[in-house]
Amino acid sequence: MKKFINDPKDFVNEFLEGVALASGGTLKYEPKYHLIYRADMPNKDKVTIIQGSGSGHEPAHTMIVGKGMLDGACPGDVFAGPPVEFVTETSRLLNSPKGILHIVNNYTGDRTAWDMGRELAEADGMKIGTLLVNDDVAVKDSTWTVGRRGVAGNFFVIKAVGAASEEGASLEELLRIGNKVIANVRTMGIALSSCTPPVRGTPLFEIADDEMEVGIGIHGEPGRQRTKLVPASKIVDILLDAVVPDLPFNSGDEVALMINGLGGTPISELYLLYGDAHKKLEKQGIKIFRSYVNEYCTSLEMAGASLTLCKVDEELKRLFLAPAEVSIRVF
Amino acid sequence: MKKFINDPKDFVNEFLEGVALASGGTLKYEPKYHLIYRADMPNKDKVTIIQGSGSGHEPAHTMIVGKGMLDGACPGDVFAGPPVEFVTETSRLLNSPKGILHIVNNYTGDRTAWDMGRELAEADGMKIGTLLVNDDVAVKDSTWTVGRRGVAGNFFVIKAVGAASEEGASLEELLRIGNKVIANVRTMGIALSSCTPPVRGTPLFEIADDEMEVGIGIHGEPGRQRTKLVPASKIVDILLDAVVPDLPFNSGDEVALMINGLGGTPISELYLLYGDAHKKLEKQGIKIFRSYVNEYCTSLEMAGASLTLCKVDEELKRLFLAPAEVSIRVF
Repeated sequence: MKKFINDPKDFVNEFLEGVALASGGTLKYEPKYHLIYRADMPNKDKVTIIQGSGSGHEPAHTMIVGKGMLDGACPGDVFAGPPVEFVTETSRLLNSPKGILHIVNNYTGDRTAWDMGRELAEADGMKIGTLLVNDDVAVKDSTWTVGRRGVAGNFFVIKAVGAASEEGASLEELLRIGNKVIANVRTMGIALSSCTPPVRGTPLFEIADDEMEVGIGIHGEPGRQRTKLVPASKIVDILLDAVVPDLPFNSGDEVALMINGLGGTPISELYLLYGDAHKKLEKQGIKIFRSYVNEYCTSLEMAGASLTLCKVDEELKRLFLAPAEVSIRVF
Repeated sequence: MKKFINDPKDFVNEFLEGVALASGGTLKYEPKYHLIYRADMPNKDKVTIIQGSGSGHEPAHTMIVGKGMLDGACPGDVFAGPPVEFVTETSRLLNSPKGILHIVNNYTGDRTAWDMGRELAEADGMKIGTLLVNDDVAVKDSTWTVGRRGVAGNFFVIKAVGAASEEGASLEELLRIGNKVIANVRTMGIALSSCTPPVRGTPLFEIADDEMEVGIGIHGEPGRQRTKLVPASKIVDILLDAVVPDLPFNSGDEVALMINGLGGTPISELYLLYGDAHKKLEKQGIKIFRSYVNEYCTSLEMAGASLTLCKVDEELKRLFLAPAEVSIRVF
């Protein structure tokens, strides 16, 4: 295991402290709940938006806390959902009379924590709504999930409701908008390598030098099949053939196209995949409204990528283009 | 070699085509010269700023072309400087009566191409100035370099002159500002793994499972020493002990602090390094003006990181905070 870490048990706490220190005062960190939150929260004039899945998927979600995105994120340890206490205490600390929106990834551990946390918070009089993200078309019912898994599509849910919430939208409005994104976003990924959670110290799975895992989960869960590595253009075909018919995305649709790196793949390769996917979609009459080529939802240092399509209408286009402030930035 | 590629010979061309397609029309691509450039160039009211080093360091430099940054980038193949023709033709295509600024990394191949390209362009009547970036404190005179190597510090040079050029600064002003950044920026990096250029197909160097290369070059050139891997906090000490005394950075100074990933290291580990470096610098009385935690100048999929400090004054602070538009973005 070759990583920039100290004691593996301190990994999450230490990198989250770095996120807060790097923010120049716009973010605060509460180590008791692994909670990164906006320094200007709570704000009684807006619905509070929070999320907390496993760590190890950065920049999701602790590095996309900021104006126009999440108001707080309280992840568990690497690849582990947050304890119930994180959910209730984060809801309490960031509570707003306009309500709290929980954005939950569809994994059994996450759902249990957020369901119980919601019950406890509601018993305390908090007004809560939940969005359940499940954009991964690869498999239904995998190792850690009943139903489909939530992966990189999360980003579009957060971007849309984050922007609407800055405009003053009600909790009911945010649920409508978030569920519209969820109904229109689909993802599938491919892994070229495994990854090693710090505390575990050994790779999550083994994969041969000439193989790839098609439909990989972001915790290394099995996908659709293990096959021989093929050229990038064939990989794009595999991903589009899974994602496009699923919604389905049709000629005449406008979409956001995301190529998300899983952590260890250079951005040059992501752009290579992007260019090929862009041309193939346009050939099908599907118009690219906006590109997203970067790391959004990773699996530590895993080499791999996922492709996400999100069908957009005028409302979503406006919300996707709205300004936002997050930790990860270029300049 | 596990990569998202087709024919390795097409790698650079294909990913650059992706960069242009992803831009939504703000960037154009001229494959004859690997040239990514702003669609609104040339602009006779501003100095044109161009760069071209090897490919394989993305997002440097083809993905930081845009308003307030580079006007064009014409890289060579992976880890190879651009041919002279790229330099002259890029200068010709993007020529401005206000002049052209060449930002050159201090590698023998790069310098030869840009020196000859400048001579040819000047013979054609173009007005050209050159900035030579050499921020890497690790070694003097390495495999590919006489003097110090240019690495992640490039970003700060480009950000400052890019912003000033949008304000209408003259070529002479840009040379003054760029040289001020170069005089105040210092970097050193550490590699945990090697990387594999697509056409070569084999790793650039070998490194054992328990080793790190201190002072690595961004083409895998040897650094100061090969040692056993140590905890992240000791790695930060090694980097600060090399970078801080070199300028030197002193108590009372204000600095930009960059933790740059070399391609294969997750951003969580970069933030862990950032937090540790931030606290140690503040303890020395050095104030962090702004954080930069991301990939800026990489070596394909190499696992590793570099630390850059840039001492800032009021002018540089203003230019660093100015708006910019680049390919790589989060939303």
